Amino acid sequence: MNKHGGYYGESKDVIDFSVNINPLGISKNLEKAIISGISQLHKYPEIDGSTAIKHIAKHYNIKENHITLGNGAIELIYLFARALKPKKVLIVHPTFNEYKRAFKLSSSEIHEYVLDKHDFKLNEDDLINHIKKIKPDVIVLCNPNNPTGTYNEVNKLEKILKVIKEINSIMFVDESFIDFANKESLIDYYRKYPLIILRSMTKFYAVPGLRLGFCIADEQIINKLYQYKEPWSLNYLSLRAVPVLLEDKEYEEVTIDWCNKERDYVYSAIKDIDNIYVYKSHTNFHICKTENISAFQLQEMLLQKGIYIRTCEDFIGLDDKYFRIALKTRLENDKLLNELKKLARSECL
Amino acid sequence: MNKHGGYYGESKDVIDFSVNINPLGISKNLEKAIISGISQLHKYPEIDGSTAIKHIAKHYNIKENHITLGNGAIELIYLFARALKPKKVLIVHPTFNEYKRAFKLSSSEIHEYVLDKHDFKLNEDDLINHIKKIKPDVIVLCNPNNPTGTYNEVNKLEKILKVIKEINSIMFVDESFIDFANKESLIDYYRKYPLIILRSMTKFYAVPGLRLGFCIADEQIINKLYQYKEPWSLNYLSLRAVPVLLEDKEYEEVTIDWCNKERDYVYSAIKDIDNIYVYKSHTNFHICKTENISAFQLQEMLLQKGIYIRTCEDFIGLDDKYFRIALKTRLENDKLLNELKKLARSECL
Repeated sequence: MNKHGGYYGESKDVIDFSVNINPLGISKNLEKAIISGISQLHKYPEIDGSTAIKHIAKHYNIKENHITLGNGAIELIYLFARALKPKKVLIVHPTFNEYKRAFKLSSSEIHEYVLDKHDFKLNEDDLINHIKKIKPDVIVLCNPNNPTGTYNEVNKLEKILKVIKEINSIMFVDESFIDFANKESLIDYYRKYPLIILRSMTKFYAVPGLRLGFCIADEQIINKLYQYKEPWSLNYLSLRAVPVLLEDKEYEEVTIDWCNKERDYVYSAIKDIDNIYVYKSHTNFHICKTENISAFQLQEMLLQKGIYIRTCEDFIGLDDKYFRIALKTRLENDKLLNELKKLARSECL
Repeated sequence: MNKHGGYYGESKDVIDFSVNINPLGISKNLEKAIISGISQLHKYPEIDGSTAIKHIAKHYNIKENHITLGNGAIELIYLFARALKPKKVLIVHPTFNEYKRAFKLSSSEIHEYVLDKHDFKLNEDDLINHIKKIKPDVIVLCNPNNPTGTYNEVNKLEKILKVIKEINSIMFVDESFIDFANKESLIDYYRKYPLIILRSMTKFYAVPGLRLGFCIADEQIINKLYQYKEPWSLNYLSLRAVPVLLEDKEYEEVTIDWCNKERDYVYSAIKDIDNIYVYKSHTNFHICKTENISAFQLQEMLLQKGIYIRTCEDFIGLDDKYFRIALKTRLENDKLLNELKKLARSECL
């Protein structure tokens, strides 16, 4: 399996900046819904989660048969690869490393389009040239992108989608982090262009333990996914969580407010620290770069202080100087920032 | 997707005999473990559930690297098909209809070996002749079998395993219902023969809502499965349930005692009802046959009385006369038996 974030060491007091989960934790409403749902665990969940799908359809104002649920967004990456079996896939890197594994397992020929690590900016004309040259069956793009935090505006992506439509290809867009971004989704475009949009409820609602994701596409793609989809892939508590989470306006507002504040706060603070470069982000994490030491060395020094960060050497297009930090509570962010400042002062960076 | 049991109609007062779940419901210990686990849902579950695997290994006295977990046993059926991509598969029918779908999706050539519906008895010599003729890469067998409830003794299966070993094939045995059977498992044989054993914790511990299964095989097969396995496929609460369920000796004893009693009780009672034939079972459900009316007609008549049964026309080798009923509590079983007796008395059967 691929490397991923997450501290699984022995210390109980480590603040885990390596996973990009909303630190507000699970909502009170969800907690109640889970407790009252325990009495229903002796029943099989709906085989395809049709009630939860109805709620998602209503929330996003789309048709029910344009949605499939996943046991986490991850199930849908593998399901899409398996169902479509694309011959050629173009992945925009650096990005989440499960796309490549999923398409490799489905025997796709993988092409990598690697963004310049100087700024991770997507030059759409250059990508379009690549697409025209390679003619991939699927183009994979994460927006906002993990691990870089960069967001591509919809008008930029629409230029690419036009070309994709011309050459009969499909864009697979992972929007798992878009709820944090306050930015436009591609949801309004899947009827116009060949497009599948992946969403995760894991990160924003802080429920990675439940496994909950969905995807949106036209009927033809969704039907193709159902041909390969395994029954009962979502557990009952995840299905039960869907309406509770989508209707929790307060949780949504508090989260977006927290995210906007902490993103600016952490960015500004790291910008002032010598020998660490922080990239602008549009979501709930930042990618940073060490100047002199390696990210592993930094990880080790911080771990001694009870802080765990994600080194990024395993992402295509990055190296052992890059690390990713999630936004956490102000108190936790301050702890990280103070330790980084201390290391800078004592010339350890 | 295939047809499955489970009542999803609008009435709230229906007793559902169509799913084979322990009616004792989820244990108090598990309920406590789930409630105390809610506070951990903001963390990713272990990517491959290694702690839960340790507990299973200890419980069955096998090596950890001989086990993989599944999001329900169903994940492992599809994973096995995908990872091994067998060219030819021989399935012993009538049986659970997901095996066929799983292997079909992996482009296997499927051969059906259909047992005589007169008694569903497996003639091992005849099956061996078939195996020698067809030379399948995988032989699929469910033991005790769903939906027939028949159990094949280990010495019978060992004769088949010897041939399977000779021709370099693998036996895929689904033991999802063996905990109810008080019968010998094939667990002691996987080191000696090419064999993968599937287990479900869903039925015995009444947690289909959680999704929890595992399989046992030698390292080579398990490693092959991991090459294709998707990360985080088990949610945190399922993983947390594993040690709690395995250590609950009282629940196990009460369940086996209940199952033994109700199996005999229901069998004897139906045997005395005219125009319904009941087959001997070794697990927690019975397959039955109507003599005059169809199983659909019976299903409808019983539904009017608040009882739902599983018609079996979709199983290969069965027809619209067959239906399956799960064992439930004495009170519920009596309700079914009384309604059947009433129908017999009023000559509706």
